Amino acid sequence: MARRLLAEFVGTGLLVTVVVGSGIAAAQLSPDDVGVQLLENSIATAFGLAVLILLFGPVSGAHFNPVVSAADWLLGRRAGTGMAGGHMLAYTVAQVSGGFAGALLANVMFDRQVWEISTKERVTTGHLVGEVVATAGLVAVIFALARTGRAGLSAAAVGAYIGAAYWFTSSTSFANPAVTVGRIFSDTFAGIAPGSVSGFIGAQLVGAFIGLALVIALYPDVQQSADEAVVPHDIPTPNNGK
Amino acid sequence: MARRLLAEFVGTGLLVTVVVGSGIAAAQLSPDDVGVQLLENSIATAFGLAVLILLFGPVSGAHFNPVVSAADWLLGRRAGTGMAGGHMLAYTVAQVSGGFAGALLANVMFDRQVWEISTKERVTTGHLVGEVVATAGLVAVIFALARTGRAGLSAAAVGAYIGAAYWFTSSTSFANPAVTVGRIFSDTFAGIAPGSVSGFIGAQLVGAFIGLALVIALYPDVQQSADEAVVPHDIPTPNNGK
Amino acid sequence: MARRLLAEFVGTGLLVTVVVGSGIAAAQLSPDDVGVQLLENSIATAFGLAVLILLFGPVSGAHFNPVVSAADWLLGRRAGTGMAGGHMLAYTVAQVSGGFAGALLANVMFDRQVWEISTKERVTTGHLVGEVVATAGLVAVIFALARTGRAGLSAAAVGAYIGAAYWFTSSTSFANPAVTVGRIFSDTFAGIAPGSVSGFIGAQLVGAFIGLALVIALYPDVQQSADEAVVPHDIPTPNNGK
Amino acid sequence: MARRLLAEFVGTGLLVTVVVGSGIAAAQLSPDDVGVQLLENSIATAFGLAVLILLFGPVSGAHFNPVVSAADWLLGRRAGTGMAGGHMLAYTVAQVSGGFAGALLANVMFDRQVWEISTKERVTTGHLVGEVVATAGLVAVIFALARTGRAGLSAAAVGAYIGAAYWFTSSTSFANPAVTVGRIFSDTFAGIAPGSVSGFIGAQLVGAFIGLALVIALYPDVQQSADEAVVPHDIPTPNNGK
Repeated sequence: MARRLLAEFVGTGLLVTVVVGSGIAAAQLSPDDVGVQLLENSIATAFGLAVLILLFGPVSGAHFNPVVSAADWLLGRRAGTGMAGGHMLAYTVAQVSGGFAGALLANVMFDRQVWEISTKERVTTGHLVGEVVATAGLVAVIFALARTGRAGLSAAAVGAYIGAAYWFTSSTSFANPAVTVGRIFSDTFAGIAPGSVSGFIGAQLVGAFIGLALVIALYPDVQQSADEAVVPHDIPTPNNGK
Repeated sequence: MARRLLAEFVGTGLLVTVVVGSGIAAAQLSPDDVGVQLLENSIATAFGLAVLILLFGPVSGAHFNPVVSAADWLLGRRAGTGMAGGHMLAYTVAQVSGGFAGALLANVMFDRQVWEISTKERVTTGHLVGEVVATAGLVAVIFALARTGRAGLSAAAVGAYIGAAYWFTSSTSFANPAVTVGRIFSDTFAGIAPGSVSGFIGAQLVGAFIGLALVIALYPDVQQSADEAVVPHDIPTPNNGK
Repeated sequence: MARRLLAEFVGTGLLVTVVVGSGIAAAQLSPDDVGVQLLENSIATAFGLAVLILLFGPVSGAHFNPVVSAADWLLGRRAGTGMAGGHMLAYTVAQVSGGFAGALLANVMFDRQVWEISTKERVTTGHLVGEVVATAGLVAVIFALARTGRAGLSAAAVGAYIGAAYWFTSSTSFANPAVTVGRIFSDTFAGIAPGSVSGFIGAQLVGAFIGLALVIALYPDVQQSADEAVVPHDIPTPNNGK
Repeated sequence: MARRLLAEFVGTGLLVTVVVGSGIAAAQLSPDDVGVQLLENSIATAFGLAVLILLFGPVSGAHFNPVVSAADWLLGRRAGTGMAGGHMLAYTVAQVSGGFAGALLANVMFDRQVWEISTKERVTTGHLVGEVVATAGLVAVIFALARTGRAGLSAAAVGAYIGAAYWFTSSTSFANPAVTVGRIFSDTFAGIAPGSVSGFIGAQLVGAFIGLALVIALYPDVQQSADEAVVPHDIPTPNNGK
């Protein structure tokens, strides 16, 4: 379990470093075109996220995202498998701490002050709908691949999904409470002001439920191997112990 | 069958959301260079389409496109397999309805009025030739992969194909009647005026026939598994019932 | 054999359509930044070429390139396998004819006059060295993958290689006599003036020999399956017949 | 062993040619936006590096990087396997010589004087932290894939990793002493002044240790096949001989 939490901490941290760091570089280097900045930011994130999933996936499942861990726990309660609630909470703490640390690392690398708070308000009606759509799609992709024995495609698919969702959702697809919290701590391109965080996370939770409903509607049968695919190793859980 | 139609409805809808939404974002963020807008739009579409095929493929075959469903039906009549005519029509209704809903969702996410009609006329001789080429290539890729037992490559291949065809066809490669209809309902970068729709769909039908002819010329033998690859599960069809 | 030649004709044609068409679109849409034009052109070509190899590979090996066919013939003479000389010539004719037709199709799609001749002189010392490097690398990649039983990676690898070589060679990596000839017939971004063609093709031939020498030095042993990978089906050749 | 050193020499050389050459092209063609230059440079490098790993991997393991060779040697000392120290030094000489030659080739292709020295000072605190992060991630990805039997994904993963790290690290991710030395010899976009080299290489060594520590923490067990994955063929080493 310590290795799993290390993987979630470092993995979520580096994910925020990728998002925030490439955002800083893009804004510095392409000051005249915000679209080009987002293109640079989205390609770096798509590539980086895919690699992080490959790197940490065999250890912890590479959730990097509290709503993914919570969805795994919820699905497991239905099926008598999945993560235990306590493990889900431990994952969440590791992910949020990692996200915070990752933002500080990005600030250090780009010679900014280590500690800063974003002033970028992001809540609009459209953006909240965007977060619902973004998170629903993310959860649907992850669990649909797991339930059809194609978890080996997750790294490429999740990277490509986020790369696209930066563009097709109006909110640029945060879709992740731990990353959302981490992005508070850099007053740069990818930052989010504290006042916008609760709205974004609320929308992400709604999106996660919609994504789960879609997965259950499309793929009602769970293969034996599906849970294993999302949390790969033998986590001893109360449910499994029965 | 309800699950299949749900998959085609949601999948085609999200495809139009990706196309229209990323087009709106690109036009807003990169106002000075239409080429950069199309680059952003095309990369988002390539990544998003590939993921949608992975997400919905095992349920419905991830056609998202009436000419693909019709081509499957036509090929099946030759071979005594494939979709039944009634299923093809049901797929088409789900796809067109989804395309319409997807455009509205993109409008909502980007804080536009929900209901609007594009004013972008697109018919020129070159553009119609472009649609013929785009659709022929799309149909050829899908069925060539199916007939050679490589349907697992469809998601990446179709995504990459459309990403390229946005550029090498003059029409930016609609290549899909359901997406063409959906794109009527957003007066933005990716929209199409109603008066241009019949010309585009006509060209797509011509292209589909040429694509099928090419497939039959190159791969005359149908493997047992080929039909299964395009419509993956056991659809009971009159032809199959014989 | 007719199917093979059809595949080489249509495949090389569409390759030139992709190169020339995406070049026209890029130059029209991004008039202010030649680098952005080349980025658009190179991404479209990388994606399109990979898909064309998937589409036509099982029929003809998807050479689309006289120096690849010639290299296969040369290697075969050493090993007593490979293409017959007559087949190599037939491939070449199909490829060059296809390249010519593909340029005309691009002109038609973009509402230009069908017939035109490029006025873009391209020969410099650096560009010729670029063509040597580009072609050596292309030949090395194709035959190294074939000799190590990884021909299934060719589509992605060759697409990625050309996408990179557009940038790291000064000549933007033609690396293909049939495509070079085809690009004469469009006086647009990707065109080449007739007076530059012989220099480019000469450099490509030199590069092909260097690429072959590198393959032989790195992978001296030919697996039974290697020749099959480059020309996939049972072409009856005099050498094989012995 | 001669074939291995040839592979490391040519492979590292071409890697530097890709990095430097695409940097020259990007700076010439997109003079107005440094971000677009880096986007062009990073995409070309990601694609090119992936292909070079496919091309040379089966011969030498496609290290192209002294810290990767050194990490393999260090891990092998722990496990009683891996490269011998002498082989590691021979690899390093081949890599550094290749990097030097690759820069000259790029200069020649772009009609620059063959011999030149970069004047681009790059050392800042942030950049050194960036090199630590970049190299740690690179080493972690390579050996994590090897230790989990997924070395077949290395080409795509390492390419994507470097493509992202160009953006999320402030230093644009050199992460490689041989490439760092090579980049001295071109006074262009990707160059580095001699005075900045020792700082960068020092940071890379620190990063390599951190990356190794992460690998050992996450994946303490070494599969029989893991060493084979990084140095694929039967190198006779003193340790193996026991």
